[in-house]
Amino acid sequence: MRREQFSAISNDKARSRDGIQELASAGDKGPSANALDRWLTRRLLQFIGNPPVAFRLWDGVEIIPAGRKPTAVLAINNRLALYKLCIDPEFNFGELYSTRDIDVEGNLARFLEIIYDTIHYQPQSLFNRVVENLQNYRAQNLSLQQTRKNIQHHYDIGNDFYREWLDTAAMQYTCAYFPDPSMTLEEAQIAKMHHVCRKLQLQPGQTVVEAGCGWGGLGLFMAMEYGVNVKAYNISHEQVMYARERARENGMEGKVEYIEDDYRNIEGSYDRFVSVGMLEHIGINNYHNLGEIIDRVLKEDGIGLIHTIGRNQPCRLNRWIEARIFPGACPPSLGQMMEIFEPQMLSILDIENLRMHYARTLQHWLDRFDNNVNHYRDRFDDAFIRAWRLYLAGSIAAFRGGTMQLFQVVFTRPRNNNLSWSRAHLYQQQAQE
Amino acid sequence: MRREQFSAISNDKARSRDGIQELASAGDKGPSANALDRWLTRRLLQFIGNPPVAFRLWDGVEIIPAGRKPTAVLAINNRLALYKLCIDPEFNFGELYSTRDIDVEGNLARFLEIIYDTIHYQPQSLFNRVVENLQNYRAQNLSLQQTRKNIQHHYDIGNDFYREWLDTAAMQYTCAYFPDPSMTLEEAQIAKMHHVCRKLQLQPGQTVVEAGCGWGGLGLFMAMEYGVNVKAYNISHEQVMYARERARENGMEGKVEYIEDDYRNIEGSYDRFVSVGMLEHIGINNYHNLGEIIDRVLKEDGIGLIHTIGRNQPCRLNRWIEARIFPGACPPSLGQMMEIFEPQMLSILDIENLRMHYARTLQHWLDRFDNNVNHYRDRFDDAFIRAWRLYLAGSIAAFRGGTMQLFQVVFTRPRNNNLSWSRAHLYQQQAQE
Repeated sequence: MRREQFSAISNDKARSRDGIQELASAGDKGPSANALDRWLTRRLLQFIGNPPVAFRLWDGVEIIPAGRKPTAVLAINNRLALYKLCIDPEFNFGELYSTRDIDVEGNLARFLEIIYDTIHYQPQSLFNRVVENLQNYRAQNLSLQQTRKNIQHHYDIGNDFYREWLDTAAMQYTCAYFPDPSMTLEEAQIAKMHHVCRKLQLQPGQTVVEAGCGWGGLGLFMAMEYGVNVKAYNISHEQVMYARERARENGMEGKVEYIEDDYRNIEGSYDRFVSVGMLEHIGINNYHNLGEIIDRVLKEDGIGLIHTIGRNQPCRLNRWIEARIFPGACPPSLGQMMEIFEPQMLSILDIENLRMHYARTLQHWLDRFDNNVNHYRDRFDDAFIRAWRLYLAGSIAAFRGGTMQLFQVVFTRPRNNNLSWSRAHLYQQQAQE
Repeated sequence: MRREQFSAISNDKARSRDGIQELASAGDKGPSANALDRWLTRRLLQFIGNPPVAFRLWDGVEIIPAGRKPTAVLAINNRLALYKLCIDPEFNFGELYSTRDIDVEGNLARFLEIIYDTIHYQPQSLFNRVVENLQNYRAQNLSLQQTRKNIQHHYDIGNDFYREWLDTAAMQYTCAYFPDPSMTLEEAQIAKMHHVCRKLQLQPGQTVVEAGCGWGGLGLFMAMEYGVNVKAYNISHEQVMYARERARENGMEGKVEYIEDDYRNIEGSYDRFVSVGMLEHIGINNYHNLGEIIDRVLKEDGIGLIHTIGRNQPCRLNRWIEARIFPGACPPSLGQMMEIFEPQMLSILDIENLRMHYARTLQHWLDRFDNNVNHYRDRFDDAFIRAWRLYLAGSIAAFRGGTMQLFQVVFTRPRNNNLSWSRAHLYQQQAQE
């Protein structure tokens, strides 16, 4: 089914019902959709807020909210797919997209941004919001074992897979920083690491502990560029192996140590605490405990930074993404994050929201993912590849649409008066780069 | 009683009891303190965490926590003062200092910083913390009428009084901004206003609403320097009169309008919302309502800024300050502040903590207050002047000691993608100043 079909629609059977237009294309095919199918489709469009998109059924009938000019088409390719969408659109959209029972014609990220926009901000989304809020309160108390399983689900797919679409500079699977939006992904990931290091006011010889270190890029960068001694914790075996190898290649084994263990087992005493892209995975009920760990390991004049996906208000993750891509993940609101800091009297120095930077980062990832798809077609089935594509595009939509945030939070102990008088040093780039 | 007396102490009656040293000065005077008085004094020192200070009783006996080298002396000038201190030290310290029943020899701010440090951070302060937390939950639901009364208590003392010690540039009774700590108070207040305006990304012709405008300095500055149209709300009659007069003098009546009304009555639709130093006064139970007001008046691509004294964790204000200086005031933690933003899905863009800037601002105010004391000795009695002096010095101690924070919070609506790619524009000073 191709984009041109949409333009080829003839209006001979156009009618309007409940504010929804129905159009039948000239080239119907397959068993006809019946009155119930069309009624369900109209209800589905209403339920998600009548966005300006067309839903095309398997026989070629297109249903469009009245008065809206559709900017993309969702093709629903069989009756069972329609029923599944009606029963649980949030979860089954991803399932059906993966198996090609539904498809999107036009820009996938843009289509999803339109859908999210009506779901999240229109008055009729109250039902969804209530359901979301109820589900927020389900237990988030992840055990060490469950966390390990969740992380392995995502990060142990294989380093080769991620290498196909992450930056080549440091394999950063977190939001880059584009102070100049024309930067390449590699430039922006290096700029991100400098931004984090400057916020931490790193000085040569300081000790840094990193909670959740991915493929070790930031730890190695801090050791090489800022002369600090790093201990980096991660429970993903594949990532730790990769990180150690890179440290060896760069002769940095004595300066950066990668430890295959949970952040809850961090020991020692450090000048700096840093965690980039781990908080989303640890569960909100563990925030108090994370605060206690920080309190235990951070020196009296220590500074810390947490970089995390976040929300404007408490809200659970899309259920399909949680089930298929990120088990156990939950981006917090700032209010929820304060459970880390307030009980320990940790003092917030600086919070920056880099939401648009994540949308741009994800666009780079998606472009590379699409360009390199033939490199991993043999290793992963079509449903896996389509699921990842949907996840990347959906994330672009969520960050562009303002339903996801990216927070960098800098904090210190309450009595540390050894603070800079302004944040101007973050923006004196020539000094370091 | 002068500082030299302390050095002149003879050790002839020195002894140690419960880890507290007692010294009797060579020159005892007045009716002797008895064993109960000395026991109470030792208990009092223990209760506040055995800080490195001496408490000197009215007969010259000095009591010092064992092993501590006292850096300041609290003179307790009669038995009733001692009893009152023991019954309710938090409240009665201010009362007794105002009436000279107690006095501090040495640097008052430094003495208070030492005391706060032990009260807030030592393990034995658990009792205090429990009491504080219980009192946090008392009603904070200020009516319009009560708010008006509270504000008049503080701000309608008379413009002349504040003019004696605030900056001459714009009479700003809020934290200044010292990107260079050697700045004068006037320079730092102008730098603060630029900092706020840059955070708001003001463009000529935009409309700005200001909730709580003090003597109108920021509103006038925004109109004159950034070419915006300002409506500024304040319930202090004296301040509004003064602000209008200054706008007239500067020919800015058409650009900045001062409205003598409560922020809850703000009407209209604005590109920018700004509130500097009002949030502390409105009561935490009104935050949700403030969020609704912002949601009602802020345009779709609007940006807002709230500048407020804050806390690292929920904590009520010192009871004496609340009773005598700032009725109804309560600086929030960031978690508490989120009640403004999260229910409305407002998106936090930037939070900066300027705690040390407030300590420096207050030091400037205290220096001027002391230098100009003869200018208002005829208008205010000694107790009033000493109460204000204690409040200024105590605030220095609280900001230096890290028990008070100063937050600037920048926010926008969730779908506003018209955002700058970095905060570098805040630090390109030459362009504006």
